[in-house]
Amino acid sequence: MIVAGSFGHRSLFTTVTLLTDFGTADGYVAAVKGVIASAVPGVQIIDATHEIAPGDVYSAAHTLRRYWNRYPVGTVHVAVVDPGVGSARRAILAHADGFLLVAPDNGLLSLVLEDAHEKTVVEITNAELIGIPESSTFHARDVFAPAAGHLLRGAEPKSLGREISDWVRLSIPEPVVAHNTIAGVVVTVDRFGNLQTNIPAHLVPPGALVLLGGREIGVLAGTYSDVPPQHPVALINSDRMLEIAVRDGNAARILRATTGEPVTVLTDR
Amino acid sequence: MIVAGSFGHRSLFTTVTLLTDFGTADGYVAAVKGVIASAVPGVQIIDATHEIAPGDVYSAAHTLRRYWNRYPVGTVHVAVVDPGVGSARRAILAHADGFLLVAPDNGLLSLVLEDAHEKTVVEITNAELIGIPESSTFHARDVFAPAAGHLLRGAEPKSLGREISDWVRLSIPEPVVAHNTIAGVVVTVDRFGNLQTNIPAHLVPPGALVLLGGREIGVLAGTYSDVPPQHPVALINSDRMLEIAVRDGNAARILRATTGEPVTVLTDR
Amino acid sequence: MIVAGSFGHRSLFTTVTLLTDFGTADGYVAAVKGVIASAVPGVQIIDATHEIAPGDVYSAAHTLRRYWNRYPVGTVHVAVVDPGVGSARRAILAHADGFLLVAPDNGLLSLVLEDAHEKTVVEITNAELIGIPESSTFHARDVFAPAAGHLLRGAEPKSLGREISDWVRLSIPEPVVAHNTIAGVVVTVDRFGNLQTNIPAHLVPPGALVLLGGREIGVLAGTYSDVPPQHPVALINSDRMLEIAVRDGNAARILRATTGEPVTVLTDR
Repeated sequence: MIVAGSFGHRSLFTTVTLLTDFGTADGYVAAVKGVIASAVPGVQIIDATHEIAPGDVYSAAHTLRRYWNRYPVGTVHVAVVDPGVGSARRAILAHADGFLLVAPDNGLLSLVLEDAHEKTVVEITNAELIGIPESSTFHARDVFAPAAGHLLRGAEPKSLGREISDWVRLSIPEPVVAHNTIAGVVVTVDRFGNLQTNIPAHLVPPGALVLLGGREIGVLAGTYSDVPPQHPVALINSDRMLEIAVRDGNAARILRATTGEPVTVLTDR
Repeated sequence: MIVAGSFGHRSLFTTVTLLTDFGTADGYVAAVKGVIASAVPGVQIIDATHEIAPGDVYSAAHTLRRYWNRYPVGTVHVAVVDPGVGSARRAILAHADGFLLVAPDNGLLSLVLEDAHEKTVVEITNAELIGIPESSTFHARDVFAPAAGHLLRGAEPKSLGREISDWVRLSIPEPVVAHNTIAGVVVTVDRFGNLQTNIPAHLVPPGALVLLGGREIGVLAGTYSDVPPQHPVALINSDRMLEIAVRDGNAARILRATTGEPVTVLTDR
Repeated sequence: MIVAGSFGHRSLFTTVTLLTDFGTADGYVAAVKGVIASAVPGVQIIDATHEIAPGDVYSAAHTLRRYWNRYPVGTVHVAVVDPGVGSARRAILAHADGFLLVAPDNGLLSLVLEDAHEKTVVEITNAELIGIPESSTFHARDVFAPAAGHLLRGAEPKSLGREISDWVRLSIPEPVVAHNTIAGVVVTVDRFGNLQTNIPAHLVPPGALVLLGGREIGVLAGTYSDVPPQHPVALINSDRMLEIAVRDGNAARILRATTGEPVTVLTDR
């Protein structure tokens, strides 16, 4: 298990990313960054996003999965979408494939933990290290930022608490494969209105026909420009998942679809 | 008075934060960051927020108050919500408890200056140092960013102009305490719809009953999860102020309240 | 031609800015930043904006023009508004007045290239350096970020591909000057509702009368506060262009105008 430096061996460059549902206008995010900048002078602080819809742990988990392992090994990812702040929900940190992630234990880390090859999860319980939270309503500032600070300065994950294995898992529906049919579902919609399904690339052979609800979208394409502008298209996206889009358009709006919409793939015709 | 380094003694790490009402899409913020990055190579530039509502100095002042003293001493905070740009309104800098703040003199710094223990305020008048502004409409780029650059490189605050004591103050209503009643008001609403009042924690004893308008919210609670989901709750928030919220919901929307709404606390029942 | 360092001579401080139409909520931007942070440890990553309207290359080009040359020479600007991703549209980089810019070849760089004194444009074709894109839908992560990484580490622009001169140009209408009249048009509207025209400052003499559509705005003013609150005003803005605004108000909304609205200037009355 390689941790990004340790006390006395801190790497020259350390990076932390932040994901929240706080927006920026109220100054909560700015306070969190201040705590981290104070704890770790010169740290590279990167805004992942603060525009997760309030309380939307499910979207946050998908978003985090999109970037966590693109960073230098040793990066600390702080992710706080925390409707249960102040309740008995646990604060956790994960050490996954050389990355460190800090979050409330509400499923936010569970998709990353599904993807990670090696992982350890620790409940953050070391009150001596973290201190008594200043508030019961702002643990991003009072618990998660200090925890990230310790990790960025090289603390061993296990110094922050005790290892656990029963972290909260999100239930993402699995696609059902039967005969020549895959039955899946739209799981996320992005800013462009692209509909990402739960069907991974490796299940979808060339020539497969894709339907959204009862509507035929077409044969699996290679990229958006394989169809004329404003036409729907099914392709493998940058997460290696089946996606339904409209070229130069917003599929969610044009096809009147959102998360939960059934997607069918006919693999042998 | 300790200033973050001085010419020839600049600290290794310097941090600047930015608060504006510019949004980011037009590139104004990007220009401001460029001026600062050019003046101070390697400076840590932190976006506090650019999503203050256009011209809303009052909200900006509350937001700034939430983070200014969470940063390393010596941090320079640039805050520009500036409906009077180009008029006779002054440009000021404050040196407050070891932090430096640069802003138009329209009240934006006044809540920080209320909170600060030691403070000096300087009107920025040194045209030799700052230069003639390129424009009459974009002083964030042409006045405040250059001023921040000088401070980040270690300039003494007083080298930028002359000390003043008549900076513009925002008038925030004070809560009125009479007999067993505190009469306050909602002063800000955050992204989650939480209603922050002007009543500080130390005025509200355990067991106090809280009303919003004529509506009973309940006895002072410890945290959101002390009530069932979708129920209103009154608690002390992370700014150590009385707040009215709805658990897992948007209090502003559900309770149909916004800034200015009266809040009553019955302290002895 | 001075390039920001070269292999073995990388400068101590390197800066990259990012402009996209991705928003931040989906994690695409966070993935791009991760690729760059991994390629260039310690690089200063600056968010220009991620709030360009989806696919709006025209606005993106105007935004980029506002900040590109405010940064330290050698800064790499990544700009990705890319409705044609995955099609035959080229990926390009420009070396302009000491700055490096990476973008799809769809006009996004064309206004910067109009303004630049010295420029070289290269089509990014070096598959050996960039690698095979992981996806056909996310070239910001798979092509532009790796290209930026090479440039930030000191690669010569021409090592990434072959020089071209037929990059895509946006057609921005030129103002027409005839007798004592300038006929122009609104080209952008900013967050404040200010209407920027295509008429440069040097064409507009003091005393000129400005009309928007058929409506008289007034004689050229010096700054917003030359008129009473809520009144329209014409002035030279921070880009040295004629702008029509409403003091403390939103001109686009109040004057019911947007891009394309004709603007007339009477220069001799």
